[in-house]
Amino acid sequence: MRANQVPTEEIKREPAAFDDRVTADGRYGRTAEPGRYRLIINRACPWAHRVVITRRLMGLEDAVSLAVTDPKQEIIDGDPHWVFTEETGSPGGRDPVLGIHALREAYLAREPDYDGGVSVPGLVDVPSGHLVSNDYDRLALDMATEWDGLTREGAPDLYPETLRGEIEEIGEGVYQDVNNGVYRTGFAPDQEHYDQAVDRLFSRLDELEERLTGRRYLAGDHITMADIRLFVTLVRFDAAYHGHFKCNIRKLIEYPALWAYARDLFQTPGFGDTTRFDHIRVHYYWVHEGVNPTRIVARGPDPRQWLLPHGREALGGSPFGSGAAPGPVPEGERVPDLR
Amino acid sequence: MRANQVPTEEIKREPAAFDDRVTADGRYGRTAEPGRYRLIINRACPWAHRVVITRRLMGLEDAVSLAVTDPKQEIIDGDPHWVFTEETGSPGGRDPVLGIHALREAYLAREPDYDGGVSVPGLVDVPSGHLVSNDYDRLALDMATEWDGLTREGAPDLYPETLRGEIEEIGEGVYQDVNNGVYRTGFAPDQEHYDQAVDRLFSRLDELEERLTGRRYLAGDHITMADIRLFVTLVRFDAAYHGHFKCNIRKLIEYPALWAYARDLFQTPGFGDTTRFDHIRVHYYWVHEGVNPTRIVARGPDPRQWLLPHGREALGGSPFGSGAAPGPVPEGERVPDLR
Repeated sequence: MRANQVPTEEIKREPAAFDDRVTADGRYGRTAEPGRYRLIINRACPWAHRVVITRRLMGLEDAVSLAVTDPKQEIIDGDPHWVFTEETGSPGGRDPVLGIHALREAYLAREPDYDGGVSVPGLVDVPSGHLVSNDYDRLALDMATEWDGLTREGAPDLYPETLRGEIEEIGEGVYQDVNNGVYRTGFAPDQEHYDQAVDRLFSRLDELEERLTGRRYLAGDHITMADIRLFVTLVRFDAAYHGHFKCNIRKLIEYPALWAYARDLFQTPGFGDTTRFDHIRVHYYWVHEGVNPTRIVARGPDPRQWLLPHGREALGGSPFGSGAAPGPVPEGERVPDLR
Repeated sequence: MRANQVPTEEIKREPAAFDDRVTADGRYGRTAEPGRYRLIINRACPWAHRVVITRRLMGLEDAVSLAVTDPKQEIIDGDPHWVFTEETGSPGGRDPVLGIHALREAYLAREPDYDGGVSVPGLVDVPSGHLVSNDYDRLALDMATEWDGLTREGAPDLYPETLRGEIEEIGEGVYQDVNNGVYRTGFAPDQEHYDQAVDRLFSRLDELEERLTGRRYLAGDHITMADIRLFVTLVRFDAAYHGHFKCNIRKLIEYPALWAYARDLFQTPGFGDTTRFDHIRVHYYWVHEGVNPTRIVARGPDPRQWLLPHGREALGGSPFGSGAAPGPVPEGERVPDLR
């Protein structure tokens, strides 16, 4: 995502700068091949997290490698640089595979005159070093549906044809009011915009609370893309958005169903095991100097709460339908254990 | 209180600039007389609230009149001016009794060369317009113990001789880690000071949670000054300190005993009926530009939660001992009803 250092107008997410599609059949020009692409992310970023969860649930870890940028980002011209550093495991401050320090270099490799924003996630073509796509939603959907032959055995159907209408309808409200809503609230340029954004956000959460009171997942009886899209904002809510973005009418933990739903997902392979609360907290509180001039990182709630029993099994449904849970996280990608 | 606009070092409360004592017997030079003194406060300020609650519990509303400054304060030289405005009911932006616009004028009337900080509460001698004291704790203690003959019938003993040692011992920890602790946390100049302050704050709250789990009040079986001192910070906690001052390890509502204890007091005459959440939220989020540069006021939790049943009667004790609750709030001092 791009960060606004000093909010002066309502935040709007820019359309993706590059959106080449990669599929198993190569029908859009680029073919999914093992080891060909590298996914650049930041552990703090919810838009990147959407793709990270999908990649893991589909078992694409060997097919698409992962590169993690530093949660602390210098803002240059209002734009975080998304850089690799020694501190986050990149020797010499360069990604060992691509040899770049900043994600922008992959944008410039693709288009030397590029002067727009740089966002994570970014899918990069390893041989050429070119950015292929920063279209996070398309990346996730394509990994979920178009990488046949590369996905693991037992990979779930995250985007069932019969549920796509429902998933997209839910997704539209979640995108506008929740995923983007927290940014609209946090970067509101004035009281009036803030009041409107925070109201929309919590109205939508109230509605989702009601929906999830009687059902385990948002659409159908198994985890779908609808759940992944909502989870990435919920898991950051109390740690970052509640305080830093003034989304403070309620904490997530004050919504019985939403909070149990979020814990249920968190405790499912693919969700909690791709979440780093330390990166989330440091990133938000450090990067947005316009919101938090001291850059002091708030301690936030104890993340071990996420391990409490959720009791959602009683609602029926099963996480992966006829599929199965993914195996252990590859060694180089493990996040610190909360226990 | 004084506000630090840009925190550069650990906050320390200055000693009171003026601390003349007013008592019924006049043994320190000033005698408590009905109508002689005027108390200048801000509804947002916890140090002022301590005196406001004491004044009301003791039934001193007729003896000492009340003047309320605007919750939005311009900061001049790092110091809020504590001014009277049309918006908060002072015609022409002047206190109708003293004729002043800013509390500083009463300091200057007392000492023309005064160039220190200006803080609420301030007790002003009406005939001369001189500031008498800004020593909030002494003011509260003297009103509780030294205004015999002016207090109401049924006024409680807020500072019983046999409990004074215990009250002061509790008060010392509450002052250092809670009353002042939230400011030390919110105005920490760096991460290290913040981490220390937030740890101390929540360690103390944990300890108070334990103490209040089995007993209704902090010292003895009735409300004492110890409870007033703690309440004024608790009532502002989720509305202001949790987010604005990054006191976010837990919300008050996550402490079962402390939260029920705070509601019990809130629902007791003298506490909730002297609290204005709108002034609290606006003041903190608006005044400290160094912490919140946009001055956008976070919506905060719904204050009607404070009216939920608390169940603390079961612990025994009674609010006022052999005394009784104060009567209705005088008409000119009523705060908006939360219902």
